[in-house]
Amino acid sequence: MGRWEPNARQRLERAALALFVERGYDATTVAEIADRTGLTKSTFFRHFGDKREVLFGGQDMLAQLFGDAIRTAPPSATTADCLAAALESAAVAFTPERHDLAPQRRAVIAANSELQERELLKRARLASVMADALRARGVGDVAARLAAEVGVLAFSTAYARWAAPGNRRPFTEIAHASLRDLQACAATLGAAADVRA
Amino acid sequence: MGRWEPNARQRLERAALALFVERGYDATTVAEIADRTGLTKSTFFRHFGDKREVLFGGQDMLAQLFGDAIRTAPPSATTADCLAAALESAAVAFTPERHDLAPQRRAVIAANSELQERELLKRARLASVMADALRARGVGDVAARLAAEVGVLAFSTAYARWAAPGNRRPFTEIAHASLRDLQACAATLGAAADVRA
Repeated sequence: MGRWEPNARQRLERAALALFVERGYDATTVAEIADRTGLTKSTFFRHFGDKREVLFGGQDMLAQLFGDAIRTAPPSATTADCLAAALESAAVAFTPERHDLAPQRRAVIAANSELQERELLKRARLASVMADALRARGVGDVAARLAAEVGVLAFSTAYARWAAPGNRRPFTEIAHASLRDLQACAATLGAAADVRA
Repeated sequence: MGRWEPNARQRLERAALALFVERGYDATTVAEIADRTGLTKSTFFRHFGDKREVLFGGQDMLAQLFGDAIRTAPPSATTADCLAAALESAAVAFTPERHDLAPQRRAVIAANSELQERELLKRARLASVMADALRARGVGDVAARLAAEVGVLAFSTAYARWAAPGNRRPFTEIAHASLRDLQACAATLGAAADVRA
């Protein structure tokens, strides 16, 4: 880091999202983002690799948090416990102060098909990181892949509920409820196999 | 269709895959694919929108088959029955005569990160088509999304097992076994919720 710029990353992120909404993602330049915050382009590039990272840098951080949470869960933790730990670890990224950014980010991505593809690919990467971490704990391949998809679905459902306008419930509480909903559906889908076996 | 060209589509597909493996996907031109088959470029474009469709046209067909199978399953069919019907409908695409193309296609995609991304996006689209078809039957949103992911996992596991060198088991048999494996894992993951509820 160079010169001290209080909250530079957050200011840049807020300015970028506001500009993406106003002018469109493709039409916004890094120079404009820096201008609006009174910071320089080089300060921008100290915090973000490129314009796209303003939108997706958070998902790289999530991949790290999910993987770490699963790897460091106690040996006695079940696969479902590992998913719960992963979701809890994400709560640091979804604080009340960040709640107003979520609808902006969503609107920017919804307006751009390339960004939508990027979002799907990032979700696939989250699943792959979780499956790898579960396999490293000795979970079988099929069970790890299924659990990872359930984890990503729980995360994306919880994120949408948390980001809904007017929501005041904390992310962790919503995430646990989403995971329980999915586990209940998994039990129903799994039970059909017993009947037929 | 213009002039009668016996098996033009299959000949073009085989020539294209062989060239992609030999020279790389990016370096292969449509003219070279047509040359190798003794057909013209315009015949190629009667069968494929572009070079990429040689690799991914099959997944568009699968999306259609999966959606139709779920929509036309009897009213009494459970969600698991719908997934089984979807997988069975895919068997037309995975006949013994096509078995030798699978490792080529896989090698071409593995060698190219843009094609890998395209494959992930096509899988996400398959999930989305299945979830839509299940919701149209009245399945709840969370259950439909979970079942669709299970369907895509069952399909991709089954495809990898079917395409393995030396495999002689028919796709349908492998697909049913893959779905049962996933349902057993779903039951285990779901059971953890009951204990804690």
